[in-house]
Amino acid sequence: MPLSLYEKKLRNLLESAEISVGGPNPWDIQVKDNRFYKRVLLESHLGIGESYMDGWWECDALDEFFFRVLRAKLDKKVSQFTRTLSNLAGILINLQHPSRAFHVGETHYNAGNDLYEAMLDRHMLYSCAYWKGASNLDEAQENKLRLIFNKLGLEPGMKVLDIGCGWGGAARFAAQHYGVEVTGVTVSSEQAKKAEAMNAELPVEISLMDYRDIRGSYDRVYSIGMFEHVGVKNYRRFFEITSGCLKENGLFLLHTIGSRRSSANTDKWTHKYIFPNSMLPSAKQIAEASEGLHVMEDWHAFGNYYYRTLKAWHENFEHHWPELKHAYDERFYRMWRYYLLSAAGSFRARNVQLWQILFSNEGITGEYSVTREAGTLMRTG
Amino acid sequence: MPLSLYEKKLRNLLESAEISVGGPNPWDIQVKDNRFYKRVLLESHLGIGESYMDGWWECDALDEFFFRVLRAKLDKKVSQFTRTLSNLAGILINLQHPSRAFHVGETHYNAGNDLYEAMLDRHMLYSCAYWKGASNLDEAQENKLRLIFNKLGLEPGMKVLDIGCGWGGAARFAAQHYGVEVTGVTVSSEQAKKAEAMNAELPVEISLMDYRDIRGSYDRVYSIGMFEHVGVKNYRRFFEITSGCLKENGLFLLHTIGSRRSSANTDKWTHKYIFPNSMLPSAKQIAEASEGLHVMEDWHAFGNYYYRTLKAWHENFEHHWPELKHAYDERFYRMWRYYLLSAAGSFRARNVQLWQILFSNEGITGEYSVTREAGTLMRTG
Repeated sequence: MPLSLYEKKLRNLLESAEISVGGPNPWDIQVKDNRFYKRVLLESHLGIGESYMDGWWECDALDEFFFRVLRAKLDKKVSQFTRTLSNLAGILINLQHPSRAFHVGETHYNAGNDLYEAMLDRHMLYSCAYWKGASNLDEAQENKLRLIFNKLGLEPGMKVLDIGCGWGGAARFAAQHYGVEVTGVTVSSEQAKKAEAMNAELPVEISLMDYRDIRGSYDRVYSIGMFEHVGVKNYRRFFEITSGCLKENGLFLLHTIGSRRSSANTDKWTHKYIFPNSMLPSAKQIAEASEGLHVMEDWHAFGNYYYRTLKAWHENFEHHWPELKHAYDERFYRMWRYYLLSAAGSFRARNVQLWQILFSNEGITGEYSVTREAGTLMRTG
Repeated sequence: MPLSLYEKKLRNLLESAEISVGGPNPWDIQVKDNRFYKRVLLESHLGIGESYMDGWWECDALDEFFFRVLRAKLDKKVSQFTRTLSNLAGILINLQHPSRAFHVGETHYNAGNDLYEAMLDRHMLYSCAYWKGASNLDEAQENKLRLIFNKLGLEPGMKVLDIGCGWGGAARFAAQHYGVEVTGVTVSSEQAKKAEAMNAELPVEISLMDYRDIRGSYDRVYSIGMFEHVGVKNYRRFFEITSGCLKENGLFLLHTIGSRRSSANTDKWTHKYIFPNSMLPSAKQIAEASEGLHVMEDWHAFGNYYYRTLKAWHENFEHHWPELKHAYDERFYRMWRYYLLSAAGSFRARNVQLWQILFSNEGITGEYSVTREAGTLMRTG
């Protein structure tokens, strides 16, 4: 297939989403290297991401570009085309390698705390914020914590487990504002160190361990932005742990990104550059794995707030880039920008979901209502 | 097994749920016929229901009795015992019939509109009400309708589909208060007749048809208390219909009873006397069948409100029994009381769930928040 035909094909696809090559709108793209068209059509997700990192194309509003691409379902059309082409190639040429995607040199990100400190809110929460009634990222992240802790009905003296505690910001907030004792679990020694330092004066204990090794019993359990790393083969085990460590009348809140479709994979670009062992659960996978272990009390979806969160992170990242650039190269800058804005566009297009699911073990009895405000879990009987 | 051993076994089980035979509490039971113990242990759900209908035992607070039985998981222990006994019987005696359950004569209910008019609220809604902020059944049922229509964001002029419209009360409320055009679908000619009469002056059209024959396209779709009759083999087809008949940016609200576990059966007593072809969906079954057809926007659980609804229906039923009794016999009275109060106890024990699930086809874009009040679906962008 001559180069010009790839160009024609891809331009047509983009135009069906009202995106022009060389056009004047912020979501239009500027192509700097004509190999772009072929690479995208041959390598789909990986090709578009890597060609951006390589500077083959530019876009002012990358999130808006992805929003349009995904709402028009171009990703599926390109993937289909990629599959057709590689099948065709397999017939025409005896390829030694079934996909060129794997030839591309690997670049791993090795982002440090300086990057996250610059990008995140003051509690260092690396998960979706709750923007209802909030006007900036700090407020929206505190809102998220209050929403979760109010859904859980935290009360002074409760024993609380935080599975995947990150840098300990949520555990600290719970201990400080709700008078609870928190055990935070993480598999990262660097995060554990920082979490311990941040919580030195508080009844917060940080444990460096795998979730499968969790023992003990807790009044409340929460897990924020960690389930994405569990993997579908371990979902049942995960819920056995969360169900098994809940006391009678205990509650568990799961905060996770979700997928519209059941799958065991993530896209190749994200797998290669951002989250090597992540996969997004579907509603079916969660419902199936938790059946008989938990009773689902509430399922709250607010994916559009991840769009706003990622946009805020991107703004902070750009703002602090002058200080960060001594430690990272230009290719990292482009990779990180691409990551934040393509993810923002995906959430805005509702291609991916954000869920908070409240579980009990045997069902909450009596009157109750699960809040949508950063308000209270009301119980009257 | 001698009779006295059945009695001992069942008394022990009941005592583990703090229920005494002959005790003074309203949830204690009075046994009038000693064959009760054996029948319950041999026939489980069917045995306890039929022996109540036959007057073999009495209980003042039947709902409280079932609440205690289910929270203590006695139903599972009895079912297990029943299975063990019938396996044992199969070894010891060459039974011609594997279960005595099927020997019991069949009694079908043939309840008329007079019964439902006496029992239900003024809109004749035969589904769970929403009691938040309500002080009586009429208010709680109107609350439920406003909750649903606000979640759906009904606006004047919209075309709305009601799948399983019953006597047309919800369709009428929507047409009167939200200025929409409603198509109500039912498979009951008696319900269709009454629904047409109730909506004669309104832009409401009633169609006597199976949901699988639904065509056309709608801004909004809702289905209240009908999915329980669809059956797991038809769930995929059901969601193909609801997804297929939604316009762009359309919304579908599913209001249904749910089960904690995936199964294709209902209990034998309910199957035989109350809802012959019903089965309760699990979260997994719904998530699986709707995957790829709908995006789940919100999943609201409020089973305890069905407890209150069933208690209100029971109160109305008892209150109007003097007028109704000419048309029904004593066995029907006991059956109906048992149905309402055992179901009430099941919901209170959270053995069964009540769900409202809001679906779109491609995901709602922009800011939105799904209400828990009979408030509004807010959209700001």
